[in-house]
Amino acid sequence: MNAPLPQDPEYAARCRESFGRQKAMKLIGARLVSVEPGHAEIALPYRDDLTQQKGFVHGGILGMIADTACGYAAFSLMPAGCSLVTVEYKMNILSPGRGSLRARGEVVKAGRTLTVARAEVYAEDGTHVATMQQTLMMLAGKTDHPE
Amino acid sequence: MNAPLPQDPEYAARCRESFGRQKAMKLIGARLVSVEPGHAEIALPYRDDLTQQKGFVHGGILGMIADTACGYAAFSLMPAGCSLVTVEYKMNILSPGRGSLRARGEVVKAGRTLTVARAEVYAEDGTHVATMQQTLMMLAGKTDHPE
Amino acid sequence: MNAPLPQDPEYAARCRESFGRQKAMKLIGARLVSVEPGHAEIALPYRDDLTQQKGFVHGGILGMIADTACGYAAFSLMPAGCSLVTVEYKMNILSPGRGSLRARGEVVKAGRTLTVARAEVYAEDGTHVATMQQTLMMLAGKTDHPE
Amino acid sequence: MNAPLPQDPEYAARCRESFGRQKAMKLIGARLVSVEPGHAEIALPYRDDLTQQKGFVHGGILGMIADTACGYAAFSLMPAGCSLVTVEYKMNILSPGRGSLRARGEVVKAGRTLTVARAEVYAEDGTHVATMQQTLMMLAGKTDHPE
Repeated sequence: MNAPLPQDPEYAARCRESFGRQKAMKLIGARLVSVEPGHAEIALPYRDDLTQQKGFVHGGILGMIADTACGYAAFSLMPAGCSLVTVEYKMNILSPGRGSLRARGEVVKAGRTLTVARAEVYAEDGTHVATMQQTLMMLAGKTDHPE
Repeated sequence: MNAPLPQDPEYAARCRESFGRQKAMKLIGARLVSVEPGHAEIALPYRDDLTQQKGFVHGGILGMIADTACGYAAFSLMPAGCSLVTVEYKMNILSPGRGSLRARGEVVKAGRTLTVARAEVYAEDGTHVATMQQTLMMLAGKTDHPE
Repeated sequence: MNAPLPQDPEYAARCRESFGRQKAMKLIGARLVSVEPGHAEIALPYRDDLTQQKGFVHGGILGMIADTACGYAAFSLMPAGCSLVTVEYKMNILSPGRGSLRARGEVVKAGRTLTVARAEVYAEDGTHVATMQQTLMMLAGKTDHPE
Repeated sequence: MNAPLPQDPEYAARCRESFGRQKAMKLIGARLVSVEPGHAEIALPYRDDLTQQKGFVHGGILGMIADTACGYAAFSLMPAGCSLVTVEYKMNILSPGRGSLRARGEVVKAGRTLTVARAEVYAEDGTHVATMQQTLMMLAGKTDHPE
């Protein structure tokens, strides 16, 4: 989807503020690098404590950053004052996760209730590490903050 | 799949030793509670730093424990001296993740090369939080340790 | 999910009538064998014209009956006067589809808007052929008939 | 993936001959419109007998053409004398299937054993109807014909 119009002109600040409340992203050291209408990018610097038994970045950690990249790609197109939940996602791991990673999320279709997004995870050397397809649901009038 | 015969009588020790090398599991405080042939259970005590912007356990963290529960359910049926990689997984989030969680992995079909597994994530109050379907591939003769 | 209460006492007649309007099911010779609250079963007698290049039942045909079994399992729990659409599904093929097949759909979680269901496809000799995980969305006040 | 080199110079004839043996494709009236290295396109002219209860093309039929488009995109890159099986696929339905359809399959990653592919289904008016992510496995030395 190319450059859809955001419904909320303050979308970028809203996404960054929401990301800042994600303690799990802080735990793994992930940063929201950029957010544009329908797009978001997350950077994950390599850390030894993110790995699985063979020394690669854990597949679930790949899922965390891909999930979050999809989520903010979708959230950027939502109106202010709503909340977004992940309905489901499916991820293929294409290569072992080595070193620092980037997850690029993109909206495939923004519907009234449901949004479908996709994320690609790349390593610094350009290796395509994982690809995710995700469904999200907008909860109109529900706050993005803890209740 | 009910009580398939393990190929490796030392399967439980092998799974526990492998899980012990997963630094990402240590990071989030997950424990391998039990491992039986074709089954594995992971416990994740609640911690504030595992949450997303609304205060629920992050969907990616749900994925991490479900992924790992599937992985050791499958690994328990593998012969000694092999390695197992996650090919892909798909997870539906059924309810927000509140409090401490358990992920129960189970092998649906153990093939020669590919294994299909499933995991259910439950909260302490019995709420069904998530369900995952996963594909894994055995790498014969490849070590489960860092190369 | 065990024996949830149907909202519509006429659920079975409503499901059978809806299935009867599925021309694609007639094309492949599929029958709705049974429908109970949260459960539905589809039978697909073997036919040579349902096969792929190797002589097995086409993977997409497996998907058709699994998709439809999930759909009527979910539709049985819906109120009268609504419509249901498939949001997404994910299917693993566990064994080649040989001979006549059965798809058994079951609701995993019936939410207000979204329902998650699962289907298992079996061959006559008991072989587990495929397993599907699916998300459906209820469209309240939308007819199940052509508009 | 852009223009990978085919291992088999006769890939197009091999794919077309294999598609021609798919009786299920003939049943629904699907045609293999084009096959290039890592890409395949299937056309499905509209027919009333392909529809579900609301008059749209059945979601399982969308799955059939997307599955097959992924399959021949992958098969085009395989060596002669092998066989390819679908391990699993996941499809999101983005819009109801109206009228004649096209499914475009593309290889995302061609591995030694496993290939990951994607397909997009479009209607004639350009509507994006469905998107699929799929995993396939090569069976070296196994024929693509009935055994």
